[in-house]
Amino acid sequence: MRNLLVEIRYNGARYHGYQVQPNALSIMETLQDSIERTLKKRESIVGCSRTDSGVHANQYFFHLKTDVNIPLDKFQLVMNHSLPSDIVVLSCKEVPLSFHARYDCKGKEYLYKICNKKQKDPFLADLAMWYERPLDAQKLDKAAQALVGTHDFTSFCSPNGKDGSKVRTIEYIHVWREGDMVYLKVKADGFLYNMVRIIVGTLLFINEDKLPSDSIPSILSGMDRKLAGKTASPQGLYLNHVEYDTALWE
Amino acid sequence: MRNLLVEIRYNGARYHGYQVQPNALSIMETLQDSIERTLKKRESIVGCSRTDSGVHANQYFFHLKTDVNIPLDKFQLVMNHSLPSDIVVLSCKEVPLSFHARYDCKGKEYLYKICNKKQKDPFLADLAMWYERPLDAQKLDKAAQALVGTHDFTSFCSPNGKDGSKVRTIEYIHVWREGDMVYLKVKADGFLYNMVRIIVGTLLFINEDKLPSDSIPSILSGMDRKLAGKTASPQGLYLNHVEYDTALWE
Repeated sequence: MRNLLVEIRYNGARYHGYQVQPNALSIMETLQDSIERTLKKRESIVGCSRTDSGVHANQYFFHLKTDVNIPLDKFQLVMNHSLPSDIVVLSCKEVPLSFHARYDCKGKEYLYKICNKKQKDPFLADLAMWYERPLDAQKLDKAAQALVGTHDFTSFCSPNGKDGSKVRTIEYIHVWREGDMVYLKVKADGFLYNMVRIIVGTLLFINEDKLPSDSIPSILSGMDRKLAGKTASPQGLYLNHVEYDTALWE
Repeated sequence: MRNLLVEIRYNGARYHGYQVQPNALSIMETLQDSIERTLKKRESIVGCSRTDSGVHANQYFFHLKTDVNIPLDKFQLVMNHSLPSDIVVLSCKEVPLSFHARYDCKGKEYLYKICNKKQKDPFLADLAMWYERPLDAQKLDKAAQALVGTHDFTSFCSPNGKDGSKVRTIEYIHVWREGDMVYLKVKADGFLYNMVRIIVGTLLFINEDKLPSDSIPSILSGMDRKLAGKTASPQGLYLNHVEYDTALWE
């Protein structure tokens, strides 16, 4: 028995999220179907995270335990021929049997993309949020810094989430502009359900003066989802980087 | 009766080309449906060009004759709310009744995008051709210059095309690299069916030494489609710019 750690990238536009669902196309089921064609055997996989419908991943990992003895480069090659063009295997390595793609994850970085112009861009419809009003990236970057550190993020979590403790630690958050695009990048030890999208929606409320610039501390301490802004749309969200302790396999 | 000239941009990934077809989603039908919702009246439109299934347009024009007296800015606004997110109205102006979006077109520029790296990019699957072998853009740019000028382009035209004369004048053609992307831009007074995609396919044959670098003149003079390379895939192709004599409406 071997444990393979597989790194992928995917465009989530066509999928109803990562997790298998009845009567809906999922990333996980598409991967398992390709693995079955590659290994001639159905194997289950364990992903590092769930992503919602329409959310993308620049980097995503899953582990796969199998007794099929396929060379790693051949596995990657056959998978990439078998997968649809919106999912790509970037790398594949053997890790100890005890390694777990979700439990061993030390932290994650998300990227959120906003296309900020008057006209929507038909080539970014599935790949970024479209926001037509003026957007002050510097103001939002400054306001967002109050999120850094260890906090109870109840106000930034969908009540539909099944998370236990709502305490997480944000290592950094940055908002910046490049031409018509505005980006938000945030790293934490873990994220609650819809947390990044609620952070983005809250910052856009601040941009529109629906919330004051210095409102983040009181939103956090209020521990009430209703205090924060709307949940921003999924198509701007990218799981960008997944961190593991490489000593686990080196 | 007024004649409106409407400028649009579209992502063709979901569409079976511009032209209306039975049992298939087309750009033209989608536009006519939105126009019907906007004007409360079905009107027919005349596009500047046909584009194939999966082909995109950074700029495209159609004209629309109507007796509905809607302000131009309102027409654009309502159309953009009515259209799906992969088609956008960029502008709308009134032109003389004699103006014709196709017959008055003086020239067109196409852009072809190639993503040239080992791994396919899941975010460009519908938006560029993926080409994994090394690609010498400078060599192809040099080879392509033999296409400039007035020639019979029979060898660069699909035999399925219904064009009459195969003589066209290419004003310029350029091939260049920006990072992992290779671009081809070509302007002519008109294009035959599949002409840009056959030019790209022929240049890729030159890149792979399936054809010599200086083979373009003999392919042209042979006037036989079989002498040229394969027809490159549609998803890399963009109608980029459409030229009119602006004296027609100024």
